[in-house]
Amino acid sequence: MEKKYVHGYSPREEKRLLDQAQTLTELLHCDTRYLKGSTVLEAGCGIGAQTITLAQNSPDADITSIDLSPVSLAQAEERVRAACIRNVTFRQADIHALPFADNSFDHVFVCFVLEHLPDPARALGLLLRVLKPGGSITVIEGDHGSAYFSPDSGAARKTIACLVEIQRQMGGNALVGRECYPLLVSAGFKEVIVSPRMVYVDASRPALVEGFTKQTFTAMVEGVRSEALKRRMMDESEWDQGIADLYRTCEPDGTFCYTFFKGTGIKPVA
Amino acid sequence: MEKKYVHGYSPREEKRLLDQAQTLTELLHCDTRYLKGSTVLEAGCGIGAQTITLAQNSPDADITSIDLSPVSLAQAEERVRAACIRNVTFRQADIHALPFADNSFDHVFVCFVLEHLPDPARALGLLLRVLKPGGSITVIEGDHGSAYFSPDSGAARKTIACLVEIQRQMGGNALVGRECYPLLVSAGFKEVIVSPRMVYVDASRPALVEGFTKQTFTAMVEGVRSEALKRRMMDESEWDQGIADLYRTCEPDGTFCYTFFKGTGIKPVA
Repeated sequence: MEKKYVHGYSPREEKRLLDQAQTLTELLHCDTRYLKGSTVLEAGCGIGAQTITLAQNSPDADITSIDLSPVSLAQAEERVRAACIRNVTFRQADIHALPFADNSFDHVFVCFVLEHLPDPARALGLLLRVLKPGGSITVIEGDHGSAYFSPDSGAARKTIACLVEIQRQMGGNALVGRECYPLLVSAGFKEVIVSPRMVYVDASRPALVEGFTKQTFTAMVEGVRSEALKRRMMDESEWDQGIADLYRTCEPDGTFCYTFFKGTGIKPVA
Repeated sequence: MEKKYVHGYSPREEKRLLDQAQTLTELLHCDTRYLKGSTVLEAGCGIGAQTITLAQNSPDADITSIDLSPVSLAQAEERVRAACIRNVTFRQADIHALPFADNSFDHVFVCFVLEHLPDPARALGLLLRVLKPGGSITVIEGDHGSAYFSPDSGAARKTIACLVEIQRQMGGNALVGRECYPLLVSAGFKEVIVSPRMVYVDASRPALVEGFTKQTFTAMVEGVRSEALKRRMMDESEWDQGIADLYRTCEPDGTFCYTFFKGTGIKPVA
Protein backbone atom coordinates (compact mmCIF):
# COMPACT_ATOMS: atom_id res chain seq x y z
CA MET A 1 0.00 0.00 0.00
CA GLU A 2 2.74 2.41 1.04
CA LYS A 3 4.64 1.71 -2.15
CA LYS A 4 1.80 2.86 -4.34
CA TYR A 5 2.52 6.58 -3.80
CA VAL A 6 4.54 7.56 -6.89
CA HIS A 7 6.70 10.10 -5.06
CA GLY A 8 7.73 7.63 -2.33
CA TYR A 9 8.19 8.35 1.35
CA SER A 10 11.86 9.42 1.68
CA PRO A 11 13.13 12.32 3.83
CA ARG A 12 13.91 14.29 0.67
CA GLU A 13 10.35 13.76 -0.53
CA GLU A 14 9.16 14.97 2.85
CA LYS A 15 11.30 18.12 2.53
CA ARG A 16 10.01 18.62 -1.01
CA LEU A 17 6.40 18.56 0.14
CA LEU A 18 7.09 21.07 2.88
CA ASP A 19 9.03 23.43 0.59
CA GLN A 20 6.25 23.22 -1.94
CA ALA A 21 3.63 23.92 0.68
CA GLN A 22 5.51 26.99 1.88
CA THR A 23 6.17 28.62 -1.50
CA LEU A 24 2.78 27.92 -2.95
CA THR A 25 0.65 28.43 0.12
CA GLU A 26 -0.62 31.84 -0.80
CA LEU A 27 -1.25 31.00 -4.45
CA LEU A 28 -3.26 27.89 -3.69
CA HIS A 29 -4.92 28.60 -0.32
CA CYS A 30 -5.57 32.34 -0.32
CA ASP A 31 -9.26 32.00 -1.10
CA THR A 32 -10.15 29.05 1.15
CA ARG A 33 -11.54 30.11 4.52
CA TYR A 34 -14.08 28.11 6.55
CA LEU A 35 -16.40 29.69 9.09
CA LYS A 36 -16.45 29.08 12.84
CA GLY A 37 -18.01 25.78 13.76
CA SER A 38 -18.14 24.42 10.22
CA THR A 39 -17.05 20.83 9.74
CA VAL A 40 -14.40 20.12 7.10
CA LEU A 41 -13.18 16.79 5.75
CA GLU A 42 -9.65 16.88 4.36
CA ALA A 43 -9.49 13.73 2.25
CA GLY A 44 -5.94 12.45 1.68
CA CYS A 45 -3.92 14.66 4.01
CA GLY A 46 -0.64 12.77 3.51
CA ILE A 47 2.06 14.08 5.85
CA GLY A 48 0.00 17.17 6.62
CA ALA A 49 1.74 19.62 4.29
CA GLN A 50 -1.59 21.27 3.41
CA THR A 51 -3.29 20.50 6.73
CA ILE A 52 -1.23 23.13 8.56
CA THR A 53 -2.28 25.90 6.19
CA LEU A 54 -5.87 24.71 6.05
CA ALA A 55 -6.14 24.73 9.84
CA GLN A 56 -4.31 28.03 10.30
CA ASN A 57 -6.49 29.78 7.72
CA SER A 58 -9.69 28.50 9.36
CA PRO A 59 -8.75 28.28 13.04
CA ASP A 60 -12.37 28.02 14.22
CA ALA A 61 -13.44 25.30 11.80
CA ASP A 62 -13.54 21.68 12.92
CA ILE A 63 -11.28 19.73 10.53
CA THR A 64 -11.13 15.96 10.10
CA SER A 65 -8.11 14.83 8.08
CA ILE A 66 -7.96 11.30 6.73
CA ASP A 67 -5.31 9.34 4.88
CA LEU A 68 -4.80 5.75 3.81
CA SER A 69 -1.25 5.58 5.21
CA PRO A 70 -0.81 5.28 9.00
CA VAL A 71 2.84 6.32 8.60
CA SER A 72 1.90 9.55 6.83
CA LEU A 73 -0.88 10.19 9.34
CA ALA A 74 1.57 9.89 12.23
CA GLN A 75 3.85 12.44 10.59
CA ALA A 76 0.92 14.75 9.89
CA GLU A 77 -0.22 14.48 13.50
CA GLU A 78 3.28 15.23 14.79
CA ARG A 79 3.58 18.25 12.47
CA VAL A 80 0.21 19.65 13.46
CA ARG A 81 1.02 19.20 17.15
CA ALA A 82 4.36 20.98 16.68
CA ALA A 83 2.52 23.91 15.11
CA CYS A 84 0.20 24.08 18.15
CA ILE A 85 -2.85 23.52 15.98
CA ARG A 86 -5.84 22.14 17.89
CA ASN A 87 -8.69 22.07 15.38
CA VAL A 88 -7.67 18.96 13.43
CA THR A 89 -8.66 15.35 14.14
CA PHE A 90 -6.80 12.62 12.25
CA ARG A 91 -8.27 9.33 11.22
CA GLN A 92 -6.98 6.47 9.10
CA ALA A 93 -9.49 5.91 6.29
CA ASP A 94 -9.85 5.11 2.62
CA ILE A 95 -11.62 7.62 0.37
CA HIS A 96 -13.26 4.61 -1.27
CA ALA A 97 -14.76 3.40 2.04
CA LEU A 98 -15.44 6.55 4.01
CA PRO A 99 -16.40 5.76 7.64
CA PHE A 100 -18.84 8.68 7.81
CA ALA A 101 -22.62 8.95 7.54
CA ASP A 102 -24.26 10.67 4.58
CA ASN A 103 -24.42 14.48 4.84
CA SER A 104 -21.77 14.67 7.58
CA PHE A 105 -19.60 17.62 6.55
CA ASP A 106 -20.11 21.26 5.61
CA HIS A 107 -17.04 21.19 3.38
CA VAL A 108 -14.66 18.76 1.72
CA PHE A 109 -11.08 19.68 0.82
CA VAL A 110 -8.95 17.57 -1.54
CA CYS A 111 -5.42 18.63 -2.51
CA PHE A 112 -2.96 16.65 -4.66
CA VAL A 113 -5.02 13.49 -4.22
CA LEU A 114 -7.11 12.94 -7.37
CA GLU A 115 -3.87 12.63 -9.38
CA HIS A 116 -3.10 9.38 -7.53
CA LEU A 117 -6.53 7.75 -7.86
CA PRO A 118 -7.51 5.28 -10.58
CA ASP A 119 -11.06 6.67 -10.80
CA PRO A 120 -11.18 10.25 -9.53
CA ALA A 121 -14.78 10.77 -10.70
CA ARG A 122 -15.89 7.87 -8.52
CA ALA A 123 -13.92 9.22 -5.56
CA LEU A 124 -15.58 12.62 -5.97
CA GLY A 125 -18.96 10.90 -6.02
CA LEU A 126 -18.13 9.15 -2.74
CA LEU A 127 -17.06 12.45 -1.20
CA LEU A 128 -20.33 14.01 -2.40
CA ARG A 129 -22.19 11.48 -0.30
CA VAL A 130 -20.67 12.59 3.02
CA LEU A 131 -21.11 16.28 2.18
CA LYS A 132 -24.22 18.09 3.43
CA PRO A 133 -26.60 19.44 0.76
CA GLY A 134 -25.45 22.97 -0.02
CA GLY A 135 -21.96 22.13 1.23
CA SER A 136 -18.85 22.84 -0.81
CA ILE A 137 -15.97 20.83 -2.17
CA THR A 138 -12.58 22.35 -2.99
CA VAL A 139 -10.14 20.47 -5.18
CA ILE A 140 -6.54 21.47 -5.93
CA GLU A 141 -4.49 19.50 -8.43
CA GLY A 142 -1.37 20.03 -10.52
CA ASP A 143 -0.90 19.13 -14.19
CA HIS A 144 2.56 18.06 -15.29
CA GLY A 145 1.60 18.63 -18.91
CA SER A 146 1.41 22.33 -18.05
CA ALA A 147 5.17 22.49 -17.48
CA TYR A 148 7.26 24.28 -20.09
CA PHE A 149 10.42 26.26 -19.83
CA SER A 150 13.26 28.08 -21.48
CA PRO A 151 15.71 27.00 -22.70
CA ASP A 152 13.48 24.25 -24.05
CA SER A 153 14.91 20.72 -23.93
CA GLY A 154 13.67 17.47 -25.39
CA ALA A 155 15.55 15.47 -22.74
CA ALA A 156 13.97 17.50 -19.94
CA ARG A 157 10.53 17.00 -21.46
CA LYS A 158 11.23 13.27 -21.59
CA THR A 159 12.09 13.11 -17.87
CA ILE A 160 8.73 14.74 -17.11
CA ALA A 161 7.00 12.31 -19.48
CA CYS A 162 8.61 9.46 -17.50
CA LEU A 163 7.01 10.75 -14.29
CA VAL A 164 3.65 11.07 -16.03
CA GLU A 165 3.91 7.56 -17.46
CA ILE A 166 5.07 5.94 -14.19
CA GLN A 167 2.23 7.63 -12.36
CA ARG A 168 -0.17 6.39 -15.04
CA GLN A 169 1.13 2.82 -14.68
CA MET A 170 0.54 3.11 -10.94
CA GLY A 171 -3.09 3.99 -11.64
CA GLY A 172 -2.84 7.77 -11.35
CA ASN A 173 -3.06 10.72 -13.71
CA ALA A 174 -0.46 13.48 -13.50
CA LEU A 175 -2.44 15.49 -16.06
CA VAL A 176 -5.59 15.61 -13.94
CA GLY A 177 -5.49 19.37 -13.32
CA ARG A 178 -7.06 20.20 -16.67
CA GLU A 179 -9.85 17.71 -15.92
CA CYS A 180 -11.02 19.22 -12.64
CA TYR A 181 -14.00 20.91 -14.25
CA PRO A 182 -15.48 17.87 -16.04
CA LEU A 183 -14.69 15.61 -13.08
CA LEU A 184 -16.56 17.81 -10.61
CA VAL A 185 -19.49 18.24 -12.98
CA SER A 186 -19.75 14.53 -13.77
CA ALA A 187 -19.63 13.66 -10.06
CA GLY A 188 -22.78 15.71 -9.54
CA PHE A 189 -21.49 18.99 -8.13
CA LYS A 190 -23.18 22.24 -9.16
CA GLU A 191 -21.87 25.79 -9.56
CA VAL A 192 -18.49 24.36 -10.51
CA ILE A 193 -15.81 27.01 -10.93
CA VAL A 194 -12.23 26.14 -11.81
CA SER A 195 -9.46 28.71 -11.71
CA PRO A 196 -5.92 28.03 -12.86
CA ARG A 197 -3.08 29.10 -10.57
CA MET A 198 -0.05 29.53 -12.77
CA VAL A 199 3.44 29.59 -11.33
CA TYR A 200 5.69 31.67 -13.58
CA VAL A 201 9.36 31.73 -12.67
CA ASP A 202 12.17 33.91 -13.98
CA ALA A 203 15.31 35.40 -12.44
CA SER A 204 13.36 38.32 -10.99
CA ARG A 205 11.56 35.82 -8.69
CA PRO A 206 14.44 34.04 -6.88
CA ALA A 207 12.22 32.51 -4.19
CA LEU A 208 10.31 30.65 -6.89
CA VAL A 209 13.50 29.64 -8.71
CA GLU A 210 14.63 27.94 -5.49
CA GLY A 211 11.34 27.00 -3.93
CA PHE A 212 9.47 25.90 -7.00
CA THR A 213 11.62 25.10 -10.04
CA LYS A 214 14.44 23.47 -8.07
CA GLN A 215 13.06 22.17 -4.81
CA THR A 216 9.52 21.35 -5.86
CA PHE A 217 9.27 20.48 -9.51
CA THR A 218 12.73 19.25 -10.45
CA ALA A 219 13.11 17.41 -7.14
CA MET A 220 9.82 15.66 -7.85
CA VAL A 221 10.96 14.57 -11.31
CA GLU A 222 14.30 13.42 -9.91
CA GLY A 223 12.35 11.29 -7.46
CA VAL A 224 11.44 8.77 -10.20
CA ARG A 225 15.00 8.46 -11.57
CA SER A 226 15.67 4.89 -10.46
CA GLU A 227 12.20 3.78 -11.47
CA ALA A 228 12.54 5.34 -14.95
CA LEU A 229 15.98 3.80 -15.48
CA LYS A 230 14.88 0.42 -14.16
CA ARG A 231 12.03 0.43 -16.66
CA ARG A 232 14.47 1.53 -19.40
CA MET A 233 12.25 4.49 -20.26
CA MET A 234 15.40 6.60 -20.78
CA ASP A 235 19.09 5.76 -20.62
CA GLU A 236 21.12 7.17 -17.76
CA SER A 237 23.01 9.82 -19.69
CA GLU A 238 19.90 11.18 -21.35
CA TRP A 239 18.09 11.21 -18.00
CA ASP A 240 20.94 13.12 -16.36
CA GLN A 241 20.99 15.56 -19.27
CA GLY A 242 17.25 16.11 -18.89
CA ILE A 243 17.60 16.87 -15.18
CA ALA A 244 20.58 19.14 -15.87
CA ASP A 245 18.42 20.96 -18.42
CA LEU A 246 15.68 21.46 -15.83
CA TYR A 247 18.26 23.03 -13.51
CA ARG A 248 19.50 25.06 -16.49
CA THR A 249 16.14 26.88 -16.51
CA CYS A 250 17.15 28.30 -13.10
CA GLU A 251 19.98 30.32 -14.64
CA PRO A 252 19.48 34.11 -15.02
CA ASP A 253 18.18 33.77 -18.60
CA GLY A 254 15.87 30.82 -17.88
CA THR A 255 12.12 30.69 -17.28
CA PHE A 256 9.77 28.01 -15.97
CA CYS A 257 5.99 27.68 -16.08
CA TYR A 258 3.61 25.33 -14.28
CA THR A 259 -0.10 25.51 -13.54
CA PHE A 260 -2.20 24.22 -10.66
CA PHE A 261 -5.97 24.07 -10.93
CA LYS A 262 -8.33 24.89 -8.10
CA GLY A 263 -11.95 23.90 -8.45
CA THR A 264 -14.97 24.38 -6.23
CA GLY A 265 -18.47 22.96 -6.41
CA ILE A 266 -21.64 22.69 -4.35
CA LYS A 267 -23.69 19.61 -3.45
CA PRO A 268 -27.21 20.18 -4.80
CA VAL A 269 -29.84 20.74 -2.12
CA ALA A 270 -32.66 18.81 -3.76
CA MET B 1 7.43 40.03 -48.38
CA GLU B 2 3.68 39.68 -47.85
CA LYS B 3 3.94 35.91 -48.02
CA LYS B 4 6.30 35.73 -45.08
CA TYR B 5 3.53 36.15 -42.50
CA VAL B 6 2.79 32.59 -41.34
CA HIS B 7 -0.92 33.19 -40.80
CA GLY B 8 -1.44 34.64 -44.29
CA TYR B 9 -3.69 37.51 -45.27
CA SER B 10 -7.08 35.90 -45.97
CA PRO B 11 -10.49 37.28 -44.91
CA ARG B 12 -10.85 34.44 -42.40
CA GLU B 13 -7.47 35.32 -40.93
CA GLU B 14 -8.65 38.90 -40.69
CA LYS B 15 -11.80 37.80 -38.84
CA ARG B 16 -9.67 35.63 -36.57
CA LEU B 17 -7.48 38.54 -35.58
CA LEU B 18 -10.49 40.69 -34.79
CA ASP B 19 -12.26 37.99 -32.77
CA GLN B 20 -9.07 37.38 -30.86
CA ALA B 21 -8.61 41.06 -30.18
CA GLN B 22 -12.15 41.36 -28.84
CA THR B 23 -12.14 38.37 -26.48
CA LEU B 24 -8.68 38.95 -25.14
CA THR B 25 -8.68 42.72 -24.99
CA GLU B 26 -9.23 43.02 -21.28
CA LEU B 27 -6.82 40.23 -20.37
CA LEU B 28 -3.97 41.64 -22.42
CA HIS B 29 -4.52 45.41 -22.41
CA CYS B 30 -6.11 46.17 -19.03
CA ASP B 31 -2.89 47.50 -17.51
CA THR B 32 -1.56 49.54 -20.44
CA ARG B 33 -2.52 53.21 -20.26
CA TYR B 34 -0.39 56.08 -21.63
CA LEU B 35 -0.61 59.62 -20.32
CA LYS B 36 -1.79 62.70 -22.20
CA GLY B 37 0.76 63.99 -24.65
CA SER B 38 3.05 60.96 -24.40
CA THR B 39 4.42 59.59 -27.66
CA VAL B 40 3.95 55.89 -28.34
CA LEU B 41 5.44 53.74 -31.11
CA GLU B 42 3.39 50.67 -31.97
CA ALA B 43 5.84 48.50 -33.87
CA GLY B 44 4.20 45.96 -36.17
CA CYS B 45 0.56 47.03 -36.03
CA GLY B 46 -0.60 44.62 -38.76
CA ILE B 47 -4.25 45.22 -39.65
CA GLY B 48 -4.75 47.31 -36.53
CA ALA B 49 -6.39 44.68 -34.32
CA GLN B 50 -4.49 45.92 -31.26
CA THR B 51 -4.21 49.52 -32.44
CA ILE B 52 -7.89 50.21 -31.78
CA THR B 53 -7.66 49.11 -28.17
CA LEU B 54 -4.33 50.81 -27.63
CA ALA B 55 -5.71 54.11 -28.92
CA GLN B 56 -9.04 53.84 -27.10
CA ASN B 57 -7.33 53.07 -23.79
CA SER B 58 -4.97 56.05 -24.16
CA PRO B 59 -7.06 58.58 -26.11
CA ASP B 60 -4.76 61.50 -25.28
CA ALA B 61 -1.50 59.80 -26.20
CA ASP B 62 0.08 60.41 -29.59
CA ILE B 63 0.48 56.99 -31.23
CA THR B 64 2.60 56.15 -34.26
CA SER B 65 1.84 52.71 -35.69
CA ILE B 66 4.20 51.15 -38.18
CA ASP B 67 4.11 47.95 -40.21
CA LEU B 68 6.13 46.39 -42.99
CA SER B 69 3.05 45.61 -45.12
CA PRO B 70 1.33 48.50 -46.96
CA VAL B 71 -1.74 46.28 -47.45
CA SER B 72 -2.07 45.66 -43.72
CA LEU B 73 -1.43 49.32 -42.99
CA ALA B 74 -4.25 50.36 -45.32
CA GLN B 75 -6.63 48.01 -43.51
CA ALA B 76 -5.46 49.28 -40.14
CA GLU B 77 -5.98 52.88 -41.24
CA GLU B 78 -9.47 52.10 -42.53
CA ARG B 79 -10.36 50.32 -39.28
CA VAL B 80 -9.08 53.14 -37.10
CA ARG B 81 -10.93 55.73 -39.19
CA ALA B 82 -14.16 53.68 -38.89
CA ALA B 83 -13.74 53.68 -35.12
CA CYS B 84 -13.41 57.50 -35.14
CA ILE B 85 -9.98 57.30 -33.58
CA ARG B 86 -7.84 60.37 -34.20
CA ASN B 87 -4.68 59.85 -32.15
CA VAL B 88 -2.93 57.34 -34.43
CA THR B 89 -0.54 58.10 -37.29
CA PHE B 90 0.36 55.23 -39.62
CA ARG B 91 3.69 54.85 -41.38
CA GLN B 92 5.15 52.09 -43.48
CA ALA B 93 8.44 51.07 -41.88
CA ASP B 94 10.65 48.12 -41.02
CA ILE B 95 11.51 47.48 -37.38
CA HIS B 96 15.02 46.70 -38.59
CA ALA B 97 15.41 50.13 -40.23
CA LEU B 98 13.38 52.48 -38.06
CA PRO B 99 13.00 55.94 -39.66
CA PHE B 100 13.13 57.71 -36.30
CA ALA B 101 15.85 59.58 -34.43
CA ASP B 102 17.33 58.19 -31.22
CA ASN B 103 15.27 58.90 -28.09
CA SER B 104 12.11 59.76 -30.04
CA PHE B 105 9.35 58.02 -28.08
CA ASP B 106 8.12 57.88 -24.50
CA HIS B 107 6.82 54.34 -24.99
CA VAL B 108 7.10 51.41 -27.36
CA PHE B 109 4.35 48.80 -27.73
CA VAL B 110 4.93 45.45 -29.47
CA CYS B 111 2.17 42.84 -29.68
CA PHE B 112 2.34 39.50 -31.53
CA VAL B 113 5.39 40.65 -33.48
CA LEU B 114 8.51 39.12 -31.90
CA GLU B 115 7.15 35.66 -32.74
CA HIS B 116 7.60 36.42 -36.44
CA LEU B 117 11.12 37.87 -36.28
CA PRO B 118 14.30 35.88 -36.92
CA ASP B 119 16.24 37.79 -34.23
CA PRO B 120 13.84 39.27 -31.67
CA ALA B 121 16.66 40.32 -29.33
CA ARG B 122 18.17 42.45 -32.10
CA ALA B 123 14.76 43.97 -32.89
CA LEU B 124 14.28 44.89 -29.23
CA GLY B 125 17.72 46.52 -29.25
CA LEU B 126 16.70 48.62 -32.27
CA LEU B 127 13.49 49.65 -30.53
CA LEU B 128 15.52 50.58 -27.45
CA ARG B 129 17.41 53.11 -29.58
CA VAL B 130 14.31 55.14 -30.51
CA LEU B 131 12.97 55.07 -26.94
CA LYS B 132 13.74 58.00 -24.64
CA PRO B 133 15.84 57.21 -21.55
CA GLY B 134 13.41 56.31 -18.79
CA GLY B 135 10.80 55.35 -21.39
CA SER B 136 8.99 52.03 -21.31
CA ILE B 137 8.55 49.10 -23.65
CA THR B 138 5.57 46.75 -23.48
CA VAL B 139 5.72 43.38 -25.21
CA ILE B 140 2.85 40.90 -25.57
CA GLU B 141 3.45 37.48 -27.13
CA GLY B 142 1.76 34.12 -27.19
CA ASP B 143 3.42 30.72 -26.75
CA HIS B 144 1.93 27.81 -28.65
CA GLY B 145 3.81 25.38 -26.41
CA SER B 146 1.57 26.60 -23.59
CA ALA B 147 -1.49 25.02 -25.22
CA TYR B 148 -2.91 21.89 -23.62
CA PHE B 149 -6.42 20.59 -23.37
CA SER B 150 -8.82 17.86 -22.41
CA PRO B 151 -9.50 15.40 -23.85
CA ASP B 152 -5.81 15.21 -24.72
CA SER B 153 -4.99 14.16 -28.28
CA GLY B 154 -1.70 13.28 -29.93
CA ALA B 155 -3.07 14.24 -33.36
CA ALA B 156 -4.18 17.65 -32.07
CA ARG B 157 -0.77 18.21 -30.51
CA LYS B 158 0.81 17.33 -33.84
CA THR B 159 -1.25 19.93 -35.71
CA ILE B 160 -0.01 22.57 -33.26
CA ALA B 161 3.55 21.30 -33.69
CA CYS B 162 3.13 21.77 -37.46
CA LEU B 163 2.26 25.43 -36.95
CA VAL B 164 5.25 25.86 -34.63
CA GLU B 165 7.56 24.16 -37.14
CA ILE B 166 6.25 26.08 -40.18
CA GLN B 167 6.65 29.34 -38.28
CA ARG B 168 10.19 28.28 -37.35
CA GLN B 169 11.03 27.50 -40.97
CA MET B 170 9.77 30.96 -41.88
CA GLY B 171 12.22 32.45 -39.40
CA GLY B 172 9.85 32.95 -36.47
CA ASN B 173 9.39 31.41 -33.05
CA ALA B 174 5.89 30.47 -31.90
CA LEU B 175 7.30 29.62 -28.45
CA VAL B 176 8.66 33.12 -27.85
CA GLY B 177 6.28 33.98 -24.99
CA ARG B 178 8.35 32.13 -22.41
CA GLU B 179 11.43 34.02 -23.62
CA CYS B 180 10.11 37.55 -23.10
CA TYR B 181 12.04 38.01 -19.88
CA PRO B 182 15.50 37.00 -21.13
CA LEU B 183 14.94 38.80 -24.45
CA LEU B 184 14.10 42.11 -22.78
CA VAL B 185 16.98 41.78 -20.32
CA SER B 186 19.51 40.88 -23.01
CA ALA B 187 18.36 43.80 -25.17
CA GLY B 188 19.34 46.18 -22.37
CA PHE B 189 16.02 46.97 -20.70
CA LYS B 190 15.91 47.39 -16.90
CA GLU B 191 13.18 46.70 -14.35
CA VAL B 192 11.89 43.93 -16.57
CA ILE B 193 8.66 42.40 -15.30
CA VAL B 194 6.89 39.62 -17.15
CA SER B 195 3.42 38.46 -16.20
CA PRO B 196 1.66 35.50 -17.79
CA ARG B 197 -1.92 35.96 -18.93
CA MET B 198 -3.46 32.53 -18.98
CA VAL B 199 -6.63 31.82 -20.91
CA TYR B 200 -8.49 28.95 -19.28
CA VAL B 201 -11.58 27.70 -21.07
CA ASP B 202 -14.28 25.31 -19.92
CA ALA B 203 -18.02 25.03 -20.57
CA SER B 204 -18.78 27.60 -17.88
CA ARG B 205 -17.05 30.22 -20.08
CA PRO B 206 -18.93 29.98 -23.41
CA ALA B 207 -17.57 33.27 -24.78
CA LEU B 208 -14.06 31.87 -24.53
CA VAL B 209 -15.09 28.51 -26.00
CA GLU B 210 -16.29 30.39 -29.07
CA GLY B 211 -14.02 33.39 -29.09
CA PHE B 212 -10.80 31.74 -28.08
CA THR B 213 -10.69 27.96 -28.49
CA LYS B 214 -12.66 27.88 -31.75
CA GLN B 215 -12.27 31.21 -33.47
CA THR B 216 -8.82 32.19 -32.30
CA PHE B 217 -6.66 29.18 -31.55
CA THR B 218 -8.14 26.38 -33.65
CA ALA B 219 -8.77 28.74 -36.58
CA MET B 220 -5.12 29.77 -36.41
CA VAL B 221 -3.93 26.15 -36.50
CA GLU B 222 -6.32 25.37 -39.36
CA GLY B 223 -4.73 28.26 -41.24
CA VAL B 224 -1.57 26.22 -41.93
CA ARG B 225 -3.44 23.11 -43.13
CA SER B 226 -2.43 23.28 -46.78
CA GLU B 227 1.13 24.23 -45.91
CA ALA B 228 1.44 21.32 -43.47
CA LEU B 229 0.00 18.83 -45.95
CA LYS B 230 2.13 20.17 -48.80
CA ARG B 231 5.22 19.66 -46.68
CA ARG B 232 3.96 16.19 -45.75
CA MET B 233 4.31 16.98 -42.05
CA MET B 234 1.08 15.03 -41.41
CA ASP B 235 -1.22 13.08 -43.68
CA GLU B 236 -4.65 14.49 -44.41
CA SER B 237 -6.69 12.12 -42.28
CA GLU B 238 -4.46 12.58 -39.24
CA TRP B 239 -4.56 16.36 -39.73
CA ASP B 240 -8.35 16.37 -39.92
CA GLN B 241 -8.52 14.17 -36.82
CA GLY B 242 -6.24 16.59 -34.97
CA ILE B 243 -8.44 19.57 -35.87
CA ALA B 244 -11.58 17.61 -34.95
CA ASP B 245 -9.93 16.85 -31.60
CA LEU B 246 -9.27 20.55 -31.01
CA TYR B 247 -12.96 21.24 -31.65
CA ARG B 248 -13.75 18.29 -29.35
CA THR B 249 -12.30 20.30 -26.45
CA CYS B 250 -15.21 22.74 -26.96
CA GLU B 251 -17.75 20.11 -25.85
CA PRO B 252 -19.30 20.48 -22.36
CA ASP B 253 -16.68 18.18 -20.78
CA GLY B 254 -13.69 19.72 -22.54
CA THR B 255 -11.14 22.24 -21.33
CA PHE B 256 -8.49 24.33 -23.09
CA CYS B 257 -5.49 26.28 -21.78
CA TYR B 258 -3.22 28.83 -23.43
CA THR B 259 -0.92 31.49 -22.03
CA PHE B 260 0.14 34.89 -23.30
CA PHE B 261 3.08 36.71 -21.78
CA LYS B 262 3.18 40.44 -21.18
CA GLY B 263 6.51 42.03 -20.39
CA THR B 264 7.54 45.56 -19.59
CA GLY B 265 10.95 47.19 -19.27
CA ILE B 266 12.57 50.60 -18.97
CA LYS B 267 15.35 52.15 -21.03
CA PRO B 268 18.17 53.01 -18.60
CA VAL B 269 18.69 56.72 -18.05
CA ALA B 270 22.48 56.70 -17.92
